[in-house]
Amino acid sequence: MRLDALFSPRAVAVVGASNRELTIGYRIIENLLDFGYTGPIYPVNPKGGEIRGLKAYPSIRDTPEPVDVAHIVIKNTLVPACVEDCAKKGVKAVIVNTAGFRELGEQGAALEDQLVAIARKTGVRVFGPNCQGIINSDPAVRAYCNFTFTRPTPGHISIVAQSGGVGEVIHQRITELGVGVRQYASNGNACDVSIPEIIQHYGQDEQTKVIVVHLESLPDPRAFLEAATQVARRKPILAMKVGRTAEGAKAVSSHTGGLVKQDTAIELIFEKAGVVSFRNLEELCQSAIGFASQPVPAGNRVGMLANTGGPAIIATDELIESGMVMPPLSKPTEALLRDRLLPEASINNPGDVLATAGPEHFAAAINALLDDDGIDAVFLNFVTPFFVDTLGVAREIAEANRRSRKPIVATVMTEKKGWAETLKVIRDGGVPTYDMPETSAKVLAAMGRYAALLKRPIESPVSFPDVDVARARSIIQAAITRRDSSNNGGQELLTADEGYALLGCYGIPVAGYRLAGNVEECLTAADEIGYPVALKVDAVGVVHKTESGGVVLDVTDREALREQARQMAARFADASPKFLVQEQLHEGREVIVGAKAVEGLGHVVMFGLGGIFVEVLKDVSFAITPLTGREAREMIESLQTYPLLSGARGQAGVNTAALAETIQRVSQMLVDNPEVRELDINPVFASPHGAKAADVRVLL
Amino acid sequence: MRLDALFSPRAVAVVGASNRELTIGYRIIENLLDFGYTGPIYPVNPKGGEIRGLKAYPSIRDTPEPVDVAHIVIKNTLVPACVEDCAKKGVKAVIVNTAGFRELGEQGAALEDQLVAIARKTGVRVFGPNCQGIINSDPAVRAYCNFTFTRPTPGHISIVAQSGGVGEVIHQRITELGVGVRQYASNGNACDVSIPEIIQHYGQDEQTKVIVVHLESLPDPRAFLEAATQVARRKPILAMKVGRTAEGAKAVSSHTGGLVKQDTAIELIFEKAGVVSFRNLEELCQSAIGFASQPVPAGNRVGMLANTGGPAIIATDELIESGMVMPPLSKPTEALLRDRLLPEASINNPGDVLATAGPEHFAAAINALLDDDGIDAVFLNFVTPFFVDTLGVAREIAEANRRSRKPIVATVMTEKKGWAETLKVIRDGGVPTYDMPETSAKVLAAMGRYAALLKRPIESPVSFPDVDVARARSIIQAAITRRDSSNNGGQELLTADEGYALLGCYGIPVAGYRLAGNVEECLTAADEIGYPVALKVDAVGVVHKTESGGVVLDVTDREALREQARQMAARFADASPKFLVQEQLHEGREVIVGAKAVEGLGHVVMFGLGGIFVEVLKDVSFAITPLTGREAREMIESLQTYPLLSGARGQAGVNTAALAETIQRVSQMLVDNPEVRELDINPVFASPHGAKAADVRVLL
Repeated sequence: MRLDALFSPRAVAVVGASNRELTIGYRIIENLLDFGYTGPIYPVNPKGGEIRGLKAYPSIRDTPEPVDVAHIVIKNTLVPACVEDCAKKGVKAVIVNTAGFRELGEQGAALEDQLVAIARKTGVRVFGPNCQGIINSDPAVRAYCNFTFTRPTPGHISIVAQSGGVGEVIHQRITELGVGVRQYASNGNACDVSIPEIIQHYGQDEQTKVIVVHLESLPDPRAFLEAATQVARRKPILAMKVGRTAEGAKAVSSHTGGLVKQDTAIELIFEKAGVVSFRNLEELCQSAIGFASQPVPAGNRVGMLANTGGPAIIATDELIESGMVMPPLSKPTEALLRDRLLPEASINNPGDVLATAGPEHFAAAINALLDDDGIDAVFLNFVTPFFVDTLGVAREIAEANRRSRKPIVATVMTEKKGWAETLKVIRDGGVPTYDMPETSAKVLAAMGRYAALLKRPIESPVSFPDVDVARARSIIQAAITRRDSSNNGGQELLTADEGYALLGCYGIPVAGYRLAGNVEECLTAADEIGYPVALKVDAVGVVHKTESGGVVLDVTDREALREQARQMAARFADASPKFLVQEQLHEGREVIVGAKAVEGLGHVVMFGLGGIFVEVLKDVSFAITPLTGREAREMIESLQTYPLLSGARGQAGVNTAALAETIQRVSQMLVDNPEVRELDINPVFASPHGAKAADVRVLL
Repeated sequence: MRLDALFSPRAVAVVGASNRELTIGYRIIENLLDFGYTGPIYPVNPKGGEIRGLKAYPSIRDTPEPVDVAHIVIKNTLVPACVEDCAKKGVKAVIVNTAGFRELGEQGAALEDQLVAIARKTGVRVFGPNCQGIINSDPAVRAYCNFTFTRPTPGHISIVAQSGGVGEVIHQRITELGVGVRQYASNGNACDVSIPEIIQHYGQDEQTKVIVVHLESLPDPRAFLEAATQVARRKPILAMKVGRTAEGAKAVSSHTGGLVKQDTAIELIFEKAGVVSFRNLEELCQSAIGFASQPVPAGNRVGMLANTGGPAIIATDELIESGMVMPPLSKPTEALLRDRLLPEASINNPGDVLATAGPEHFAAAINALLDDDGIDAVFLNFVTPFFVDTLGVAREIAEANRRSRKPIVATVMTEKKGWAETLKVIRDGGVPTYDMPETSAKVLAAMGRYAALLKRPIESPVSFPDVDVARARSIIQAAITRRDSSNNGGQELLTADEGYALLGCYGIPVAGYRLAGNVEECLTAADEIGYPVALKVDAVGVVHKTESGGVVLDVTDREALREQARQMAARFADASPKFLVQEQLHEGREVIVGAKAVEGLGHVVMFGLGGIFVEVLKDVSFAITPLTGREAREMIESLQTYPLLSGARGQAGVNTAALAETIQRVSQMLVDNPEVRELDINPVFASPHGAKAADVRVLL
């Protein structure tokens, strides 16, 4: 476990320690002392003397052996030399709290590069710079290597936050809610120790049951995807990516590519990795509390009990809208409840035990739901009436939770001072409690989302054997050579012939076509293909061929073709054009398969119905390469317009299996040919018999 | 002010008062005493004696004059007689806490009807039955006529909740957040005193600045719409309707009608009345706090300041997604900030004054935004660094708020015990503070939504003069007569001829048609109209004519028409059919205008594009009659598919003004003819030249 020395240091030094109370160099020492750090603390200050009663050393090299972690809180330009010193001393990791690096522009970036170089050379791990630090509440360690204010009680939630401010808000909120935190990290500029590494570290920490992640950007998305995929199978990762409305993707010439927002890629990474994604900090914190104390439900079937109807309606709305289900009770459960509850109780789901229900009624009802095989989780709405033995009810809730393997969450609506003991008994019994019915519902729904992610079969992308990689590579290589000898700003569009050939290499069906150099060759080509045909210009430098009059569809006979080809030849005379004569497809729905390269990740593939569905309704789906069969199917099935593909209004559906195969073959092509920057197969004609590409645009 | 005696009683009696602590009859007296009710309290108990130190009277008639409010907490069957007694005593209002009325079925309903009859007869107002009661925190009154536990401090938020449980949750949450409540009411079965009346009462109460409403259903939607419309112009009404996922609308034969969910109607009422609608209790409570202390913004332009970047990004996401805008700062504001803030501060929107910023920096920045005419509201994100004079910052925030006419909301991220004084200074200064950036953002966005509602021009529905109401009434009356003499279960479908004529009475353009009794008449009709034509069966009892082969479109010539008419005559031989030969429209987009009567309200009108857009994508909009021009336009413009009407992908748009007029004429027809249960004009051909109905179905 590579980050153990950082999170469980045997000794901590603070280089730049100070006696001035409002400095970070003072605050870190105070925090370490206050929190009861179990190892020695070595203030380092050229003046020596004492700092907060501890002997200060003039240099890190003067401190007694061994020092695992050294905070560095000195002027930015002095940091690299200090890290070198730390390396000589044998320090395992430095936490560079000092700011003034990459965030300040070029000069700072150069300074930060120095740190990275020293880290690589010496093996010292650099945490930060421009960061808060770490906290480890493990009673054997109690390392508060941080200048913030929240004092956690030991627990099972570990936090990693890119923004220190947001990390502190999360930490503070969870602590304020009375729940423990295991480890905390905010690594600022993250020049060396990275968030994926920290996630892996938390994954290996036995006492961490839930990992909370805050992200603003992903410098190495592939590393994050891999670390998160590994860890999320074992324990829940709850993550929030912010900056959703940041000015979207770069302008790109392809509208397909334009639909991939920067933010989308990170959401897709979460989805692919099995990370539970949040769009709201409060929900994230409240959910962490639920995950930390309760088992993951086996499914999404909720049984709800209440002692007053109103809040149950609210919770039901929220659960159903969040994808949970509330099945009718089984006959035996119904009979049991009818026997045990008050006569006017409502034996339903949600059930109402009535405001006058006492401990025995609650116990009977909760246990009946826990024992019902048709229920995966129990949801309680408990208002504390003054005329009820609420403490007794609390004890029954806690007791039921002790014997349960299903999750229980509770909305407890009360006056917290008057009913403090009731609340405490429920919480100490391990049942997370919430003030508002929607909050409990959102938490349980998040647990249901994780359950669904866990249930996904572990599946590898299909590697189709009938592909010609060598030929594909030679097509791409030829285009790269052409690009490198041109002045297209590093971009190169494949010719139509190259594009179709590339698809052909991967067994993607393409509408039959012939290339023609002149009008007569067009006529010969059409005779071979059979009318009607489509006529398209094929010339280097023509990017938007439809808009510039380079596409004529549905040419029905020789005369018409001759005339159209003549006109097109004249229109593009300057570009010494070739022509493409192509089988005119009609049958089926027009769909689009597109893709865009995302730096450090691979490609994001897009799928949607063509025309207004993509342009007006923006009804498209995305996924990251390499795609599994499930992912390809989900891309198709998640469309709002999916009924148009599966068959709606009495019309036959298209062959969605063939479409899914096309998407997977496109994915394989993209993995083999990472130089493809943008791909736009538009349209693909999807019919009951299969899927055929009718146009393709490939940008390197 | 008709409910004054209820909310500000000069004396309160409790009929069914008891010395047993766990009874409601004890609890109400305890609550009145505890809360410091300023009037006399008269326990009523046949045994007399003393209850909690107060003299008890054997009957309400024995109590000293005057009693404004009497709680009734006795057995349900004894309640009517007791209300009669109260009337004789001169009691103004009774609060019937006792349950066992309409909620228990037929017998209970009969008992409740008795109460209503007594109320009507005697003028006693009945609050409840099966209810909590009211609270008035006015220091001159302090009436806690309720058995719940929350003790409000006097404030400016008034609450009315249909569910007592939810009312208590709202009341508890607002109080727990340290904010005052003015009045509270939960009226249970609401047999007499209604929620619309209570809203009107709050509207007239000067100290009520915000009204919070919880609804589960609307027994009299029109009364609610009228009361809310009146009050919402003067003070914000924040409302939440629950039961969104309740099993939707009744099955109806018309798919148009089927799209109007029960819930939709209430959301539409909120929208029409100018009520700020919520789908989350916590958001509702937090927003109430913002509205209670801050002015309504003039618009949706937010200026944001932070002293750490992360939370500002989160708040920005939330604001933008909620419809607020964050404009760039004006040049003078920029210059001012550059002059006054720290050199590394980020002079943007959101701006970052930096973690090290002190009171003078905050003051300068907040005031600069308040003085900027391009900013309607100021949003602060304040993390309390240990090295900053946070109390000084708090004082500057409070001071800025005192001189401001623009709303200020603040996220204060802190450890609440350590920084209690800082928090208190901000709150006492009148600035609402929130723990989480999203919460403040949602609150400000709610204020922006109210601002937008206030800005809507007050507009009356157009009354088109060129209509023939008399003829329309005679068509409807004839159909009603037919219905009443038939066995259609009280339903009656207008014939095609009647339906088109009805539209014609309101100047709604209809595709030309002729009625024909046989095949030869069809041919003659088509000759007059001109080919192509549509041929439709017109027979009583044929509801789904398309599905049963009663519609043939695009008949191009005499031969084809003869053949089709023959077949159709044979197909419907049993129904002694007539035929409708109709101009075949092609040009433009097919849209649908539908409507459904909602009991006690009027009609809900539906609009959408036909075919897959309504059936697969469910892209439809709704509004309540009578429709104003703005509402008709918004129905069109709010569609996801609106670009297909306004012109997309290089195609010309349709005449949306003509469409809006058609919708308004339909609204006028529905208002004049309330017997119309369902209307389905499908399709209407909307083209650049106008809109023409091509089929209509009217169900009475």
